[in-house]
Amino acid sequence: MKLDFWFDFSSPYAYLASTQVDALAARTGAELRWHPMLLGALFREIGQVDAPILAANPAKQTWYYRDLERWAAWWAVPFRFPTRFPIRTVLPLRAFLATGDVGFAHRVFEAAWGHDRDVSDPAVLRDLGAPDDALLRAAEQKQALIDSTAAAIARGVFGTPTFVVEDRWLFWGQDRLDMVERCLNGWEPPA
Amino acid sequence: MKLDFWFDFSSPYAYLASTQVDALAARTGAELRWHPMLLGALFREIGQVDAPILAANPAKQTWYYRDLERWAAWWAVPFRFPTRFPIRTVLPLRAFLATGDVGFAHRVFEAAWGHDRDVSDPAVLRDLGAPDDALLRAAEQKQALIDSTAAAIARGVFGTPTFVVEDRWLFWGQDRLDMVERCLNGWEPPA
Repeated sequence: MKLDFWFDFSSPYAYLASTQVDALAARTGAELRWHPMLLGALFREIGQVDAPILAANPAKQTWYYRDLERWAAWWAVPFRFPTRFPIRTVLPLRAFLATGDVGFAHRVFEAAWGHDRDVSDPAVLRDLGAPDDALLRAAEQKQALIDSTAAAIARGVFGTPTFVVEDRWLFWGQDRLDMVERCLNGWEPPA
Repeated sequence: MKLDFWFDFSSPYAYLASTQVDALAARTGAELRWHPMLLGALFREIGQVDAPILAANPAKQTWYYRDLERWAAWWAVPFRFPTRFPIRTVLPLRAFLATGDVGFAHRVFEAAWGHDRDVSDPAVLRDLGAPDDALLRAAEQKQALIDSTAAAIARGVFGTPTFVVEDRWLFWGQDRLDMVERCLNGWEPPA
């Protein structure tokens, strides 16, 4: 079955999902496709005022930070809320579009959300294994990123991470991975 | 260990949680306490403009309805989004405060969210087993409901369902029940 993973490096929950999605696809035999998108542009387009974590009331905002730390403990992955937020991700998203290198995507996610590194910095991206030509070609990927974001909106995506199974079932949130897995194993939830 | 369950009958996710929480407490040996609160009053107090499902952008709102149906299928419990929403729950909350009858709470939840019954109607509440004197005494519970809602706010509650383990770990959302259970079994997540 096909599993589409919509993400932006700017999303902490997408990072958490990224640490699990390959293993999930391997367990279920799903054909996994990584789809970068620009979350800020999508938010503007669909009328979401701000990142949920910034738009939240103070009590809910406190909880978001705790929830992220708990999920990182749950999955046993590094996590550190970055000193810059929102983080700028146009360059690594375009570099990913230029190469399609999932290993690079994992390194960007972990650098940004595990180790507070500035992934808008070309030097950091080179250090994370982005080939020079990928960074050079990043400018050429401007339209590809615009198109990918438009495709996400057309598909009903409103945040990240989003998972789409067989182009039929859309799931939002890394806290729905159990449902995604059950769906890939034959469960047919309301679509 | 102590497990506090904060709820309002007005919340569909609290209903879903209510179908699972007794069994969870039984499995873990937790001492479960049901705490009614008035969600609308709490939202006003903490600066939440509207119920999340109503405040959401259209794509997210579509997803909320689907998510509720999926969770109902996941837990195999009846679900039907009510024709009136938000639903008025002051009377059943006060009646619950008058009796502390958890069975009554379950019947109110299922009537409201499984069968689209108007739980603001005293006749419906009588039919759900509310003793007449509980309904008569409901007016006397006005202050108790105000106090309970204030206690929720003081505890950092910002939505329902909320679970608090040992007065230390607060969890928001019925999609965190796995975490609640693991915590009751000895896991100590970031508090």
